[in-house]
Amino acid sequence: MQHAPLSVQVTRGGIVESEHSIKAVIVSSTGEVVESWGDVDMLVYPRSAIKAMQVLAFIEMGGAELFAFSEEEIAICCASHSGEPEHVATVQSMLDKLASSESDFECGCHWPSRAEASYALAGEGKKPNQLHNNCSGKHAGMLGLAKLLGVPSQGYIGIDHPVQQKIADTMAEMCEYDYSTAPWSPDGCSAPTWAMPLTNLALAFAKFASPESLSVERQKACKTLYDAVVKHPFMVAGTDRYCTDMMTILQKRVFLKVGAEGVYIAAIPELKLAIALKCEDGAVRAAESVMTTLLDHVGITSFVADGIMQKYRSVTLKNWEKRTTGAIVCRI
Amino acid sequence: MQHAPLSVQVTRGGIVESEHSIKAVIVSSTGEVVESWGDVDMLVYPRSAIKAMQVLAFIEMGGAELFAFSEEEIAICCASHSGEPEHVATVQSMLDKLASSESDFECGCHWPSRAEASYALAGEGKKPNQLHNNCSGKHAGMLGLAKLLGVPSQGYIGIDHPVQQKIADTMAEMCEYDYSTAPWSPDGCSAPTWAMPLTNLALAFAKFASPESLSVERQKACKTLYDAVVKHPFMVAGTDRYCTDMMTILQKRVFLKVGAEGVYIAAIPELKLAIALKCEDGAVRAAESVMTTLLDHVGITSFVADGIMQKYRSVTLKNWEKRTTGAIVCRI
Repeated sequence: MQHAPLSVQVTRGGIVESEHSIKAVIVSSTGEVVESWGDVDMLVYPRSAIKAMQVLAFIEMGGAELFAFSEEEIAICCASHSGEPEHVATVQSMLDKLASSESDFECGCHWPSRAEASYALAGEGKKPNQLHNNCSGKHAGMLGLAKLLGVPSQGYIGIDHPVQQKIADTMAEMCEYDYSTAPWSPDGCSAPTWAMPLTNLALAFAKFASPESLSVERQKACKTLYDAVVKHPFMVAGTDRYCTDMMTILQKRVFLKVGAEGVYIAAIPELKLAIALKCEDGAVRAAESVMTTLLDHVGITSFVADGIMQKYRSVTLKNWEKRTTGAIVCRI
Repeated sequence: MQHAPLSVQVTRGGIVESEHSIKAVIVSSTGEVVESWGDVDMLVYPRSAIKAMQVLAFIEMGGAELFAFSEEEIAICCASHSGEPEHVATVQSMLDKLASSESDFECGCHWPSRAEASYALAGEGKKPNQLHNNCSGKHAGMLGLAKLLGVPSQGYIGIDHPVQQKIADTMAEMCEYDYSTAPWSPDGCSAPTWAMPLTNLALAFAKFASPESLSVERQKACKTLYDAVVKHPFMVAGTDRYCTDMMTILQKRVFLKVGAEGVYIAAIPELKLAIALKCEDGAVRAAESVMTTLLDHVGITSFVADGIMQKYRSVTLKNWEKRTTGAIVCRI
């Protein structure tokens, strides 16, 4: 079934103040488009939504065993984490196990995404380093992949570096998409991000959710990543983040990941399908709202009490004095 | 001339990653709609774009003279400031002159909008108070208005309080709009914000730019506010803010003000007109891009070197490592 794009309305004082348009697709692990909203063949940049695919080769080649990464450390490879102390400590532990250091990272430096973590850091008279970058877990995985490939890590973010070529090859297989001529750009963390149709992004995560068509090694790697993330959802995002909260609520039934500019994916093993969506204007608030609606739509939230889901179905907006001013709502 | 809504494209790697739709209108001081894009009769919340109208009664009644407010202090009444030390000091000076204190404010408390100002505050072991609220200058004006009206300030943010009723009456005259049945809501700072058509918002600022049809007292008040803001644009926003930067570049020819959820207004005396716009999805980046395009369109930027305007016409997007990843561009 093909539908018009989904709409998310942001209300204030009883009228719509702002409105978002979102395209979305549900794909089965056998490659069937189950349902779609808007033009899902248009190219989108998956951004951080695809981190599990970027670390798949490292896991498949036995990197987690070789470097004795814990489940939390495997999970943070897939993360856009908030730079909270637990995230930073986890990535430091990975660097220690890799016999690497923060200066080997090429992701750049920014203050923790969680404002409170930034204020705490500043309060200690400190500044952020590359460990605080929300992508530092992914970059630890990339340093590990360079070691597995037996190549120097320097320049590992370059599109022609063996690390990125290996990642592109793995993604091409999972997404069934040829990246050799696809538009690409450095992402926020300088690693390449390649454009692809939203349907191909969903396909990769449907196979990730239900990997029986893949090689034995890749099936095992998908399961290792899935289990690590759903068991440690804090590692993938952080305090008061949708990915973390919704994965906690859904009790290992769904793997969720946000990407910049309003991208979201969900991989759902028990339904053997995945959801991929992109807010056309890039708003994360709308992407989260639609994801809740589509998780309801496919029936995976039915075991959760309405009282718990309600605050995601209609997100209450409050002002600085905590007065209610409006809501964010998607209706399918 | 009526046109389709304007579009702002956010590019990455040579393709459009995200896209925004914006409605805009240009209105003359005599009330003529000169040009419009999209449905400009739909209700919008002006949010902070209308702060100059919210302080107009206070200025018109002689508040600035009575309390000996400086030009910087008059300017910050119209501000959504970034909570930098100069802003906080300016509002503290106003409270002193009003014989009021921070605890009289009812705007609520948030960390400075400028992240660096927050980190500096945290680094001193401090937390923000209501002076850091981006609306604190406006609220100082509201405390002053309560004194002018001879009423207790307590509850001054309430829609039925004489302060808000006086403001609503002034706005109704300037916008030529009846607020008695208009949708409204507490704004971020708890003061009421009333919905109105975008055209009426533009009309108010066209009269503000060229106030000859107004009473002598109001003409004088409009000129006082206009002059204060364009002479002290830092007070209205702050470091690296579009309002401040563009007013500085345009050398007193334009009064600019952003509002939350992608609202912008420009008042242009030498052309006797105003621009009002609203990004439909609420994105400020798109509102700024369209404002640059429309300032070019009406011809008010023609005296500025292209080299200076270019970075606003096509905003270069860079990642954490300062690599260029894309651009934000509006084409009319």
